[in-house]
Amino acid sequence: MIRARTVMLAGAPAGGLLEDAGIGEEIFALAAEIYPICRSITGEGVHQTLAHLSRHIDLEVHEVPTGTEVFDWTIPREWTIRDAWINDAAGKRILDFKSCNLHVLNYSRPVRAKLPLDELKKHIFTLPGQPDLIPYRTSYYADNWGFCMAHDQLTALPDGIYEVVIDASLEDGSLIYGEYLHRGETEEEFLFSAHICHPSLANDNCSGLALLTHLAKRLAAVHTRYSYRFLFAPGTIGAIAWLARNEHRVNRIRHGLVLSCVGDGGGPTYKKSRQGDTFIDRVMTHVLRHASASPTILDFLPYGYDERQYCSPGFNLPVGLFQRSQFGTFPEYHTSADNLEFIRPEHLASSYRMIVAALEIAEGDWRPRSTSPKCEPQLGRRGLYSTLGGDKDGPAKSMAFLWILNLADGRHSLLDIAERAKLPFEIVAEAARLLRESGLLVEDSSDTRPIAPTKGLPPKENDSEAVLSA
Amino acid sequence: MIRARTVMLAGAPAGGLLEDAGIGEEIFALAAEIYPICRSITGEGVHQTLAHLSRHIDLEVHEVPTGTEVFDWTIPREWTIRDAWINDAAGKRILDFKSCNLHVLNYSRPVRAKLPLDELKKHIFTLPGQPDLIPYRTSYYADNWGFCMAHDQLTALPDGIYEVVIDASLEDGSLIYGEYLHRGETEEEFLFSAHICHPSLANDNCSGLALLTHLAKRLAAVHTRYSYRFLFAPGTIGAIAWLARNEHRVNRIRHGLVLSCVGDGGGPTYKKSRQGDTFIDRVMTHVLRHASASPTILDFLPYGYDERQYCSPGFNLPVGLFQRSQFGTFPEYHTSADNLEFIRPEHLASSYRMIVAALEIAEGDWRPRSTSPKCEPQLGRRGLYSTLGGDKDGPAKSMAFLWILNLADGRHSLLDIAERAKLPFEIVAEAARLLRESGLLVEDSSDTRPIAPTKGLPPKENDSEAVLSA
Amino acid sequence: MIRARTVMLAGAPAGGLLEDAGIGEEIFALAAEIYPICRSITGEGVHQTLAHLSRHIDLEVHEVPTGTEVFDWTIPREWTIRDAWINDAAGKRILDFKSCNLHVLNYSRPVRAKLPLDELKKHIFTLPGQPDLIPYRTSYYADNWGFCMAHDQLTALPDGIYEVVIDASLEDGSLIYGEYLHRGETEEEFLFSAHICHPSLANDNCSGLALLTHLAKRLAAVHTRYSYRFLFAPGTIGAIAWLARNEHRVNRIRHGLVLSCVGDGGGPTYKKSRQGDTFIDRVMTHVLRHASASPTILDFLPYGYDERQYCSPGFNLPVGLFQRSQFGTFPEYHTSADNLEFIRPEHLASSYRMIVAALEIAEGDWRPRSTSPKCEPQLGRRGLYSTLGGDKDGPAKSMAFLWILNLADGRHSLLDIAERAKLPFEIVAEAARLLRESGLLVEDSSDTRPIAPTKGLPPKENDSEAVLSA
Repeated sequence: MIRARTVMLAGAPAGGLLEDAGIGEEIFALAAEIYPICRSITGEGVHQTLAHLSRHIDLEVHEVPTGTEVFDWTIPREWTIRDAWINDAAGKRILDFKSCNLHVLNYSRPVRAKLPLDELKKHIFTLPGQPDLIPYRTSYYADNWGFCMAHDQLTALPDGIYEVVIDASLEDGSLIYGEYLHRGETEEEFLFSAHICHPSLANDNCSGLALLTHLAKRLAAVHTRYSYRFLFAPGTIGAIAWLARNEHRVNRIRHGLVLSCVGDGGGPTYKKSRQGDTFIDRVMTHVLRHASASPTILDFLPYGYDERQYCSPGFNLPVGLFQRSQFGTFPEYHTSADNLEFIRPEHLASSYRMIVAALEIAEGDWRPRSTSPKCEPQLGRRGLYSTLGGDKDGPAKSMAFLWILNLADGRHSLLDIAERAKLPFEIVAEAARLLRESGLLVEDSSDTRPIAPTKGLPPKENDSEAVLSA
Repeated sequence: MIRARTVMLAGAPAGGLLEDAGIGEEIFALAAEIYPICRSITGEGVHQTLAHLSRHIDLEVHEVPTGTEVFDWTIPREWTIRDAWINDAAGKRILDFKSCNLHVLNYSRPVRAKLPLDELKKHIFTLPGQPDLIPYRTSYYADNWGFCMAHDQLTALPDGIYEVVIDASLEDGSLIYGEYLHRGETEEEFLFSAHICHPSLANDNCSGLALLTHLAKRLAAVHTRYSYRFLFAPGTIGAIAWLARNEHRVNRIRHGLVLSCVGDGGGPTYKKSRQGDTFIDRVMTHVLRHASASPTILDFLPYGYDERQYCSPGFNLPVGLFQRSQFGTFPEYHTSADNLEFIRPEHLASSYRMIVAALEIAEGDWRPRSTSPKCEPQLGRRGLYSTLGGDKDGPAKSMAFLWILNLADGRHSLLDIAERAKLPFEIVAEAARLLRESGLLVEDSSDTRPIAPTKGLPPKENDSEAVLSA
Repeated sequence: MIRARTVMLAGAPAGGLLEDAGIGEEIFALAAEIYPICRSITGEGVHQTLAHLSRHIDLEVHEVPTGTEVFDWTIPREWTIRDAWINDAAGKRILDFKSCNLHVLNYSRPVRAKLPLDELKKHIFTLPGQPDLIPYRTSYYADNWGFCMAHDQLTALPDGIYEVVIDASLEDGSLIYGEYLHRGETEEEFLFSAHICHPSLANDNCSGLALLTHLAKRLAAVHTRYSYRFLFAPGTIGAIAWLARNEHRVNRIRHGLVLSCVGDGGGPTYKKSRQGDTFIDRVMTHVLRHASASPTILDFLPYGYDERQYCSPGFNLPVGLFQRSQFGTFPEYHTSADNLEFIRPEHLASSYRMIVAALEIAEGDWRPRSTSPKCEPQLGRRGLYSTLGGDKDGPAKSMAFLWILNLADGRHSLLDIAERAKLPFEIVAEAARLLRESGLLVEDSSDTRPIAPTKGLPPKENDSEAVLSA
């Protein structure tokens, strides 16, 4: 654990590290801005999206050329999609990429052909169980072409010859990802990661990209203990590329969260890291339990988002996954119904607040030691009980005083105490602040975990790859 | 763990260490005797109460002068209350301390005044939700005066001028507490503690004072392994004063119990020590589970009685709290309904039996080692099965034989075995005695925990404070 | 844990180590063959039973003479029962040993007498709660004679003089047990044990004897890593005798199972070893949970079958008990209703399959280490996902791939992974085999537990006791 500093909160608005007024609307607006873009694991869509994000934060864009080997993988060719459609025999356009980019099998190879309905059907993906929705399908690593459409539309198609065009190309180029680092007092890092490869799916993951961008933006104004790294990278291959290039310094990562699907009204859901008992696992469990009457806390499983890579056995980083509804459990998942109607500013705001609460615990946790450990100190004569009279959190804070003093033996952090007392961290942290001010607590300095030294850190990151401004 | 001695039970009546015939009535009688006394944290009431207890046991009374610093606290002035009343405008006495000592705010400063109802009301405490009961209120560390009355009475008071008198004084004097030590074979101590500061509240804590007095009285007649210390002290400040004066020897305390509210028909309740897994925690959990179908076993929390002080982080003693109904959970708590009708001899007797059962486990636990550990020994030819034929505990004792022999590897105590076998300790202890007599068990002597040496112990305690005879 | 060898399965039929076609009928037929024999802890019945078993496997029969001391016990005299009956006053045979061998108190001393009904009744055992069933009763270690009959029959008996004859003898002789060893690659042993002392009780334990015989028979044809020892011995005294004679080499036993009552439709039930967390405990828990929706997994208790001896504190072997219905819990237990109607080929077959599944886990478990531990390897280009398309276990196998690769850090065995992934062991084992073939896994060689060396093992067991051919 990191040692808390009161200076840390010096620049913060009253009531917390980061102000949250209007945050839901701001995140929603950015999500709506990037929603129409057709993204994939490579290609122009990622560039365009990063450009939008970089209007808010000083984003570094990194390129990794096609063919580069990254662990067991190879950076694939760059996919450029210009247009796609299907015309019927009469020349009438029955499907148009421009109206919805989900219509094209993502990463599809180019095709120009006329073919009968039976042949066409082999390249059409639908959802018979949700016949009015267009599915989201990809074919990254198998050479294929195809279209996605509503099942109702498919079944209504008359026999005949259809003209299909996918005006796309797969050529050598590069995979890109965006990275933003908020430098704190130490080199110890809190990693936030969101995938940037899905096309027009609002919750999965315009929501996560937009939330993290605004979190990074607001964080820029405050002084923190940890450094905060934000990664906006294509799923799987992007995270793998980043890990391959940063292998030598991932040991700086103390805590990490992957974010996706943070705009719907379900959940909240937290999937623990592979280690299962790390600080971030405890923090998120604490935050979700106090934010929701029925949070879902899942043990790690090797299926999901890029926590799969961060938690591969060779890295085993303390990185969990935060979501509202869990992936695969809501009917809109990976369909055209995951649109801007599905996400809401209020849900984005509450997701933001949970992330900020976690961040505040990471910043604000410390291990108190009582200066009066033998019997209880007399709180009354210090005015600590009476100061609480008119406070709505009064009873909780009184119990917080007692719990803190009882457990302030240098072996319990504020989070430990909050968990044992079943009180929200912020109540415990505020009570601990008052006790410290009154001289009843000092910070225990026997922390033996080494903190990454700042000496020897180059003033600017010196990546070998080209750095672009998005 | 302490090594068991068969000699230990030499003086005990058949069936247990301490006889319990008539015990409920005896405890009740003593509780009834001390019930009328107006106690506070200091003052004559404590003296009078200790005088009653000392008719049964050879009590030492210790004085700590006003102004003495004890850890973070200072011994307060001594409160003397002589009389108190309220007269209405017609001179009619509407409230009289002599009829119920709860009527005066405990530790109230003196007052003599005439004042209108509106002003008077600022100094009246009632229970609107229990309008016919007088509440018990204190103001130890804030300078205040006041009266407690039934809410029904308050609302019926006509406007007018009232005369109020509290004929009390707060002057330098001393805080006193009573202590009794039953010397056992070793200096290792079992501490029993009960608060002596509450006025006429029968369950809280005339019951605890009376139970411990009679326990100490009966214990005086038997030879024990442990020494037993009984402390009758004002809540909080009394325990703190005792700890401050005995700081150098509290490490002798191996097990401890705070007792309060042991006369009602609820519970039983045991609140674990801060450590949570000490021997006394296991013993009390075992005893309560076998004594009751639905005992309440609570984790430690830093609210309650003097276990708060014993379990403060600088001491962290293995001391738990035994009650019937838990404090604050029964409607009579801290009201005039906590009277002699509320406690019953049969509940006092069953509380006593639970405490004695705990004491017997502490005295009687030992770690057996089988002399025939390879395969089961043949019990039949030793007459061990047949001896059990006509015994109502026969089947349990047969299983006890098998469990003991199976676990008699020197790493399991009788309590461990009783817990694993889900059998009452006394059944296991009796079966172990029979097995030992038949040569199938020996006591494991590899106990590495040092037992406090008796050499070097002064023949009599040498406290620096004055010692009075109560 | 033992290191897996692919060669191990070389001789096995597709789909598993041991073929199971027709197994239920074969086991039933053998159980039916031995059902009529009147067995006891000593005597001709055990000889006859072993003779039947030895038609299938190369059984060694060991003799231990009467009077031999085995730990705390002495080998008793040999019981020979030739005939027994009761005649009424008219000379009519009202009870005949030849019609049911349960009629005689097992190990009864001889008697020839005429006596009135009142006297006779002192020697009659019945089941008043199951009045039409004959109980099974023994008197091994108390000198007694008696008969067992249906309670209805007893209550219908008229007064009068009865003639009773038990033509039996108790003479010096020997106790015998059968043993079969399947030699595997190492000397590490998997012990299977079944009691052979009960007379005509089909489930308890003709079923266990017959199942183990056919397991041993089929195992003879395959190459295994472990050696498998099968013990068919009288309950208690037989197991004690075996342990006494094999004390020096029981440390070879890595896993063990006692089998009894494996032919009824209840359970399955597994009672854990005394240690409670051994490999066999985990294996059986895993097997039963995947074989049944509601298995019963019991903690060890020192009552039951010969696991009591294997798990006595001086041995503490990793031996559990497998049953269908737990002993003592089904109404047919120890009565004439435990007959050939009560056991079924299909239940015997499913019991067999569970035992084989456990054996396959013991043989097939190993600790994988990923050759590509940083990020996930790309399964698609290795055809691992596609190979699973048409496979009914496809989805489970895909998750198995991900789980194995995620946990392949050398610290998790396949069983660990199967438990964590909540997948059947065989799915995980098959997926691990495919991953290993594709080069993504190697076996971790850092196992520090020594495997019993084969050097120095005498070519044949050199027991000092006489070895007979049954």
